[in-house]
Amino acid sequence: MALFSDSIETFDDLFVGVLKNVYYAERQITEALPKMIDKATSPELRAGFEQHLQETRGQIDRLERVFQMYGTEAEEATCPAIDGIIKAGNAMAGEIDDKQVLDAALIAAAQLVEHYEIAQYGTLIAWARQMGRGDCADLLEQTLQEEKSTDQKLTRIAESRINRAAEQESMNPGSPPQYA
Amino acid sequence: MALFSDSIETFDDLFVGVLKNVYYAERQITEALPKMIDKATSPELRAGFEQHLQETRGQIDRLERVFQMYGTEAEEATCPAIDGIIKAGNAMAGEIDDKQVLDAALIAAAQLVEHYEIAQYGTLIAWARQMGRGDCADLLEQTLQEEKSTDQKLTRIAESRINRAAEQESMNPGSPPQYA
Repeated sequence: MALFSDSIETFDDLFVGVLKNVYYAERQITEALPKMIDKATSPELRAGFEQHLQETRGQIDRLERVFQMYGTEAEEATCPAIDGIIKAGNAMAGEIDDKQVLDAALIAAAQLVEHYEIAQYGTLIAWARQMGRGDCADLLEQTLQEEKSTDQKLTRIAESRINRAAEQESMNPGSPPQYA
Repeated sequence: MALFSDSIETFDDLFVGVLKNVYYAERQITEALPKMIDKATSPELRAGFEQHLQETRGQIDRLERVFQMYGTEAEEATCPAIDGIIKAGNAMAGEIDDKQVLDAALIAAAQLVEHYEIAQYGTLIAWARQMGRGDCADLLEQTLQEEKSTDQKLTRIAESRINRAAEQESMNPGSPPQYA
């Protein structure tokens, strides 16, 4: 699986190349999320990750429709960026025992993933529109809105409960967690 | 250089750990940007990267002030996420000969870097405020606003000139570039 399966000579090749990177990334995310669900303690966070896993599967279907509309085969191309982001999250999570601190770290890791996707889908949408492919752009836009909404939801979960619980735990080790 | 130089037991350790990751990332970015300046063709894009390089140096100084305010030594901790993002950008750029297509790819790569920073600074600011460290949060907020502004500027450059030029080049190979 090449970084880009073909050499990039035209703007069109670039669009398809990044589309393949994002297709690879979404599939990697469906493998990473179940591990994050297992590690999360807060029921709200677990539910958020579970919902995002469902959404990611829908986003993969949507990418396959974009490949089809664009007249090219759905194919993955390795993306070192998402590999590094997932590796960073795993490494950080592996070093934390405290459940509340771990939840805060999992949210931070998930927000790095969301921002990767926000950047990539934003790029693809701009390129699709410039090539006169509003049909592809509109489909990708639906995913972008989902990613932004997930990012905002993670911020709300973090601000409302988890970070505060983690901080209290740090200040008063052994005190009961603040989760319901 | 460990991923986190110390084990993470408390929320405070987590904050310092991510601060060290971002310190490492900003230094990696100061090494990556000159190469991107060399590769860029559009004068507007080159100027944008040069300005961001200056800004990044200021952001490093600001991080050092945050370490000092927080009472801990300024230290880097390897972050596989930024390593992967930079690696992806280099790999993509290495596969493209056409100058206009390359400019479009460089913008996409830079926006991945910006979104990494937006996510990380957003996380650090939220944590600093929750720990009652509004002084650290205010400094980090200045950087976050710069990153968001750079991301928007890159979108404007892409939409106004480069992507369009790349697309025309793809449709009419050999036609003169659209840059001034």
